Amino acid sequence: MTAQPLADLRVIEGSAFVAAPLGGMTLAQLGADVIRFDQVGGGLDVNRWPLSPSGESLFWPGLNKGKRSIQVDLRAPEGRELVGELIGSSGEGAGIFLTNFPARGWLAYDALRERRADLVMCAMTGNPDGSSEVDYTVNPATGFPWATGPRDLAVPLNSVLPAWDAIMGGLAATGILAAERHRTRTGEGQLIRLALSDVAFAMVGNLGRIAEAQLDGQDAERDGNYLYGAFGHDFATNDGRRVMIVALTGRQWHALQEVTQTQHVFEGLTTVTGHDLSSEDGRFGARDLIAAILRPWFEARSLEQVRDAFADTGVSWGPYQTFHQLVDEDPRCSVQNPLFSTVEQPGIGAYLMPGSPLELTAAGRQPARRAPLLGEHTEEILGDVLGLSGAEIGRLFDAGTVAGAS
Amino acid sequence: MTAQPLADLRVIEGSAFVAAPLGGMTLAQLGADVIRFDQVGGGLDVNRWPLSPSGESLFWPGLNKGKRSIQVDLRAPEGRELVGELIGSSGEGAGIFLTNFPARGWLAYDALRERRADLVMCAMTGNPDGSSEVDYTVNPATGFPWATGPRDLAVPLNSVLPAWDAIMGGLAATGILAAERHRTRTGEGQLIRLALSDVAFAMVGNLGRIAEAQLDGQDAERDGNYLYGAFGHDFATNDGRRVMIVALTGRQWHALQEVTQTQHVFEGLTTVTGHDLSSEDGRFGARDLIAAILRPWFEARSLEQVRDAFADTGVSWGPYQTFHQLVDEDPRCSVQNPLFSTVEQPGIGAYLMPGSPLELTAAGRQPARRAPLLGEHTEEILGDVLGLSGAEIGRLFDAGTVAGAS
Repeated sequence: MTAQPLADLRVIEGSAFVAAPLGGMTLAQLGADVIRFDQVGGGLDVNRWPLSPSGESLFWPGLNKGKRSIQVDLRAPEGRELVGELIGSSGEGAGIFLTNFPARGWLAYDALRERRADLVMCAMTGNPDGSSEVDYTVNPATGFPWATGPRDLAVPLNSVLPAWDAIMGGLAATGILAAERHRTRTGEGQLIRLALSDVAFAMVGNLGRIAEAQLDGQDAERDGNYLYGAFGHDFATNDGRRVMIVALTGRQWHALQEVTQTQHVFEGLTTVTGHDLSSEDGRFGARDLIAAILRPWFEARSLEQVRDAFADTGVSWGPYQTFHQLVDEDPRCSVQNPLFSTVEQPGIGAYLMPGSPLELTAAGRQPARRAPLLGEHTEEILGDVLGLSGAEIGRLFDAGTVAGAS
Repeated sequence: MTAQPLADLRVIEGSAFVAAPLGGMTLAQLGADVIRFDQVGGGLDVNRWPLSPSGESLFWPGLNKGKRSIQVDLRAPEGRELVGELIGSSGEGAGIFLTNFPARGWLAYDALRERRADLVMCAMTGNPDGSSEVDYTVNPATGFPWATGPRDLAVPLNSVLPAWDAIMGGLAATGILAAERHRTRTGEGQLIRLALSDVAFAMVGNLGRIAEAQLDGQDAERDGNYLYGAFGHDFATNDGRRVMIVALTGRQWHALQEVTQTQHVFEGLTTVTGHDLSSEDGRFGARDLIAAILRPWFEARSLEQVRDAFADTGVSWGPYQTFHQLVDEDPRCSVQNPLFSTVEQPGIGAYLMPGSPLELTAAGRQPARRAPLLGEHTEEILGDVLGLSGAEIGRLFDAGTVAGAS
């Protein structure tokens, strides 16, 4: 059987919250040995919400699945020395360090590469100058909150999903693989810098919003659940549910008209209003009219009737679901989908965990693995990575320099 | 000088919209030769909004920066043969195909690997079964729109940012580098499968929301611009601006109290209400009270006064900006930041373009490169990749099998 594609990589991770842990987990879920180190007692994210009914963080195990965990007293010189040895440890696929801790002092790249000259280090910061920024503070600066929400809302509206963190985590994984590839070919390690505000603002540009603001001088107005520049809107069904309908392409628009039997109405609309509904622009311009014409069709049907009517028609649509409905009703979010397994997380219980969305078919999909307990692998890591003897490891535990799982 | 880290990679991309083009662009911005092929006249995204004042898509050039472009008649057998030859072309770093086109018929993995046995192919789909799904239809299913918006809003609220697409693009880049790494070591190519709904639902799980729904049975309620499980909220300033304030960590909470001189009020609040404001939980429980106590401080100050007061204090905060304000006011989104360059996009004009947020320091940051014109590199690619003669290329143009830039 083929091994997982990154099975020979070892990544040391010093992290908290979303982006850096997600970057490490992306690599772990493709087979890498990812060792997260934390201050004894846990880092800043150890109690982050959401919580289990018993008060344990569900966030921490969510973002650290498939890793090993070591607890170290990072304030003690001997603890720092241990972490430095882990980061600089030998082996072709080792010597990779991912962190969103301040990359200065003992964690500066130049200090760490004295331990291993070809170190690959990905240093994640809030802003390019190293100053702090979190998803919740950078998102307001991007422009998206002012473009989000009902038309009559007078205030900007934040995203609940920490999207910039999530995008940044993926970029960290890409950057590490690119730098490790370069090292394999040339022997040269390097520092990778990655700032959250750069991730966010680059994406604003990638999506054309910077050019639009610069060239046009106007901001697109917030527009509820309408799609920008094409037709897309949400509709209520007669059983209290809602669906999102999208007609981005001509094919989707034709399918929607056919199933809802509205072609003749829209032909009439074109004649009366002059909107060219065969173009994305025209459908966007007429979006309120289109929505009003389609609304009765949805109001006369249940979600199941909508689902049946749209099956295999080419209509692009989806139901709105709460998190609870996602888990209870959607087979794609269940063990019917090989992405998910029900796994016991010690101290919390058994629940549905995802593996990597990437299925690299040579090795096959690695089933979801649980997160470690904080310090679960302290002893093992000191032995198998640093080669310490049982007596030395015992002394470190006794001195409080390291700790195991409690 | 060190070459860009992926300078020896060649990726053939058959794509439209966000996720697949972004995956290819992520690799192009690290130096890969990414060739996007399109149907003559352009794909489904060729006119996607936002548009320039002259009506050109700003979206398309945003997501295809630094690539080469070839226009081919994909309906003609000879056109398909040319694309097949591009995908299967020889070279150690070639033989990589990224697509969100249906991976069947002539674009099926098994058909393509007859041209190159070690082909690495990343096939992106909407759902794992290959059925269609776009960001705007999968987002409603995740649970986030029901958790987004003002407390009194009765309907779900979509994200304007296609976050799942953006996350998926990063995963595609990671998956390709992982598979190419495996191929370098073993000679074995492989198919990578990646579904948008898997990307979305995995992230819902990673953030603890699946576990919360399963174990707790309750959905968190929408909560405006409050942070979940800690203190974070937005405030108006006296000059009509707004700021987001976050006190996730104890240090941030202390800094916020110190600058706003509210310690004694919050001490009193603890005594009266019993909220333990030293914990994230306690601050979340008291969030409305905390916001009410802080509000007058912001209402008495301008954005600049807030900025000055918070400078170097450790308070975690950020201003809300429209897209226009981001471009006009924020030095991080300007040529002062090496991420950005002002580049002329032919047919549109000069505007601010981002390069890769990843700075791999060995080679240094590659400045932002513009997008190709559709078909700009048709002739060049037929020559330098497929080795066709001038006469053969001329015949393909004459027959309408390929087209250049218009």
